[in-house]
Amino acid sequence: MKKHNYSAGPCILPQEVFEKSAQAILNFNDSGLSLLEISHRSKDFVAVMEEARALVLELLGLEGKGYQALFLSGGASLEFLMVPYNLMKVNGKAAYLDTGTWASGAIKEAKHFGETLVVASSKPENYNFIPKEYSIPIDADYFHCTSNNTIFGTQMQSFPKTTIPLVCDMSSDIFSRVLDFSQFDLIYAGAQKNMGPAGTTLVVIKEEILGKTGRTIPNMLDYQQHIAKESMYNTPPVFPVYASLLTLQWLKNLGGIAAIEKINNQKAALLYNEIDSNPLFEGTAAKEDRSKMNATFVLKDESHQEQFDKMWKEAGISGLTGHRSVGGYRASMYNALPLESVQVLVDVMQELKNRVQ
Amino acid sequence: MKKHNYSAGPCILPQEVFEKSAQAILNFNDSGLSLLEISHRSKDFVAVMEEARALVLELLGLEGKGYQALFLSGGASLEFLMVPYNLMKVNGKAAYLDTGTWASGAIKEAKHFGETLVVASSKPENYNFIPKEYSIPIDADYFHCTSNNTIFGTQMQSFPKTTIPLVCDMSSDIFSRVLDFSQFDLIYAGAQKNMGPAGTTLVVIKEEILGKTGRTIPNMLDYQQHIAKESMYNTPPVFPVYASLLTLQWLKNLGGIAAIEKINNQKAALLYNEIDSNPLFEGTAAKEDRSKMNATFVLKDESHQEQFDKMWKEAGISGLTGHRSVGGYRASMYNALPLESVQVLVDVMQELKNRVQ
Repeated sequence: MKKHNYSAGPCILPQEVFEKSAQAILNFNDSGLSLLEISHRSKDFVAVMEEARALVLELLGLEGKGYQALFLSGGASLEFLMVPYNLMKVNGKAAYLDTGTWASGAIKEAKHFGETLVVASSKPENYNFIPKEYSIPIDADYFHCTSNNTIFGTQMQSFPKTTIPLVCDMSSDIFSRVLDFSQFDLIYAGAQKNMGPAGTTLVVIKEEILGKTGRTIPNMLDYQQHIAKESMYNTPPVFPVYASLLTLQWLKNLGGIAAIEKINNQKAALLYNEIDSNPLFEGTAAKEDRSKMNATFVLKDESHQEQFDKMWKEAGISGLTGHRSVGGYRASMYNALPLESVQVLVDVMQELKNRVQ
Repeated sequence: MKKHNYSAGPCILPQEVFEKSAQAILNFNDSGLSLLEISHRSKDFVAVMEEARALVLELLGLEGKGYQALFLSGGASLEFLMVPYNLMKVNGKAAYLDTGTWASGAIKEAKHFGETLVVASSKPENYNFIPKEYSIPIDADYFHCTSNNTIFGTQMQSFPKTTIPLVCDMSSDIFSRVLDFSQFDLIYAGAQKNMGPAGTTLVVIKEEILGKTGRTIPNMLDYQQHIAKESMYNTPPVFPVYASLLTLQWLKNLGGIAAIEKINNQKAALLYNEIDSNPLFEGTAAKEDRSKMNATFVLKDESHQEQFDKMWKEAGISGLTGHRSVGGYRASMYNALPLESVQVLVDVMQELKNRVQ
């Protein structure tokens, strides 16, 4: 039976990425060698890295605008500390918006480097909305926000205008919607939602913001070193980068971010409409801040839980259980999840209503 | 034609690792889902991580001796700074042995954290030997060495006895030979030689040496955090860890390190015997320090280069060109390279001798 994979990440990727990457492990580019056994300095892999870096800037509309794309490793969690290491001046300060578990993790790491001001937090409301009333100190070295909060199902619909560098953790919604990406000075994203498998992290940086802190930075944590070495300062995570390239190629062939955004809008409309119209369910996030990537919802009456869980599992749905911080359900609808899978979930929700009433 | 892959890393892995890992990308554990799309918190992947960590300690003979094995990301280059961050006291110092490019990289990063004493260096001789006459200050916080130097073809045949923690970068020879691994307090190794594909780094730590520096450490760089979270502090590099587990299972089924050491000794003996007996070639590393993983050698008369290069390429050999720092040739004979591949190279070297003479 076909699976409908709602996993919050690592998550569903396009089927062709699975097929092509499995083939590359057996025989890469018809070389007679596996992708896993070739040098990262080989012509074939250097071409992979170059194409992946260029395609990121192309898809984001950032070509020729002073940006560099890097495929690093360590996950977004390593960027939590690389960002302040590279951007916070000695005796400087940074401003953060606290919208969830990952934002809070980024704040924690920044405190190792200097004054870390939290301009607003929705923590007292269990992060069920995005704070909007706050001001950003213009003497901070940068402002950091998290565009989408997987655990709590909220998403920033707009971003503050500020004269200081704008840094955004887009791990869970990059490549999902059209934005003016040039409003950001640094974007980072763990691959394992919309870009590829776990094991690489995308960093997109406006180069001119670097080198201004007065800090000496260990080479491996220094964005300028990674840029100088064209994202090959050390051996990159070869397979995750290759599978990311395949995913980016899939997105380009589909029509790019504008095309996937239409499908993502359809999926979100279909599911949120059901959550709002079905009397058994309710959403947990503030409506105006709802995420199109992760819809969080609960059963109004928990006594239906056993029946509902049995029904969606029987329908081939997996990964729908909500995060323990919120409970209930979380439907992660990343780029590669087909509309058909959302329809299957909506059908199950309607069937539950019919059976219960 | 069968390829004989002498790549210095990423490098050849067992054929069954390619086949099984490609299959897992199409359908992992017969779940109907790809290994790339499942949660790292799923029962199936947690089992992978647990088995991999346990198997490392089993193969190294370190079970029940106070060690923890971690699969991190960032490469050995990230360990260059995590080691001093976690082991060098505030206002403390560390002692390093400089045996090559990677040792030198580790020294560079350590200097960001405090006094970094180089007890000996073979740099003036282009790292063609391992220094042996040096003393290790007992007031240093640790001593760091590199067991095998891929670029220069040297390998430590024994390790100094010291009362301070012994740290070893074993990226290019771990799991290749029997050692008393309990003489080390911290071992690290990028996966991409004898353990798996690029994208994960093994760290094996004697837990009691941690937490003594007086430093506050960002979470992502803190070994104690990674231990507390059972190597899942953040999303691990799922595919590289899985392929590493397959490689470790292959090694165990073969009979473990003792069994592979016998084969590695045969391969090295076969090749070095040819280098020493064939009048056209000579080795570049001091004989007593020769590496069994990477044999570096040159043509005495460079005018034969074109002919030799044509011959080994026609024999299906790849990755034999030496690193630019040494020139000539480098035959990397990691665990998964079969004896048969070494025989093919030796046959080509003998054929060249026959044609030239």
